[in-house]
Amino acid sequence: MSEERHGTRRSGGPRKAQEIFDAALDLLAEKGYEGLTIEGVAQRSGVNKTTIYRWWPSKGALLGAALIGARQLDLAPPDTGSLRGDLEALLHTIATPLTTPPASDIAVAVLGAATHSTELAVHVKDFFADRIAREEPVFTRAVARGELPADTDPMLLVDLLAGAAWIRVVLRQLPLEKDFVSRTVRTVLEGARAAD
Amino acid sequence: MSEERHGTRRSGGPRKAQEIFDAALDLLAEKGYEGLTIEGVAQRSGVNKTTIYRWWPSKGALLGAALIGARQLDLAPPDTGSLRGDLEALLHTIATPLTTPPASDIAVAVLGAATHSTELAVHVKDFFADRIAREEPVFTRAVARGELPADTDPMLLVDLLAGAAWIRVVLRQLPLEKDFVSRTVRTVLEGARAAD
Repeated sequence: MSEERHGTRRSGGPRKAQEIFDAALDLLAEKGYEGLTIEGVAQRSGVNKTTIYRWWPSKGALLGAALIGARQLDLAPPDTGSLRGDLEALLHTIATPLTTPPASDIAVAVLGAATHSTELAVHVKDFFADRIAREEPVFTRAVARGELPADTDPMLLVDLLAGAAWIRVVLRQLPLEKDFVSRTVRTVLEGARAAD
Repeated sequence: MSEERHGTRRSGGPRKAQEIFDAALDLLAEKGYEGLTIEGVAQRSGVNKTTIYRWWPSKGALLGAALIGARQLDLAPPDTGSLRGDLEALLHTIATPLTTPPASDIAVAVLGAATHSTELAVHVKDFFADRIAREEPVFTRAVARGELPADTDPMLLVDLLAGAAWIRVVLRQLPLEKDFVSRTVRTVLEGARAAD
């Protein structure tokens, strides 16, 4: 894939970047942030340690690049034709990685570790900024269809959905009931429409 | 305070329980979950280590008791006369400990560590169950005043508010803008009313 086509490689990267990212995320899921090492990533990906260090000087930098650039996190924003459909799809793509191993091990490890590693926190912040930028079209289209007021704040709506899922699944350790997605989306959607 | 008056001591506890809880939460804020030890709590609180172990066999058990029983977390649910007022007060009492040291060090350390300590996760789960039980009256009164449908799910509304605050402050590392509380409450409130 050329540098032009592959947006995530705009600042360069080794030829086997995806294998390195996969190894970093797998190791994070298995061993947590403390147990993640460049050495371990080199071993698992079969890429020389010095090659990895040339591109990413620390495990924090590597993990930051992996969060933004990994194929397995490279999800297109939903486009179902309605805002309700898009938000339900979006909440599914947020809640599934929180509940389904091995993705849940990665997500919970990264977001938990962000609270006690200043370096990782910077990359989590970048990851969330990258996500909201990708999700913007969902809201632009909804405004164009007349489904949302023009001054809607997409970040508030996304954070309401994602935050409720995080608390329910990770902190309350409750299952995602069958109707959780539809009830949560309905509440946020009606709230966004009315709070004009 | 007698055992009868002090609900949190229904299962007993040493005379200086509050000093022990304060020490545990302070040490957690300073050193994180890994750095918290019963030894350290004993030193800081001036209570004999064996006394602490007699009541709480591990630091996880002690922290669980501290989260439920600590004076500094013993907040009465708001009763401002309107649901909007109550939810704004509630979101303030949730967001303030996430942003203001030393409470933010405690909150972020506990909630972050919950993702990688199974024992602590159980206590965080109990803490959230205790909180929602305390917050129930806010919603019972709102239903009685006709401000909410009778089948409202208080947990969904609390998790939407608290989750949005958590993502914004801890993961996005954005400030709580002046109007964040009012916009968030308005969206959730209108959503709850409409999603009947």
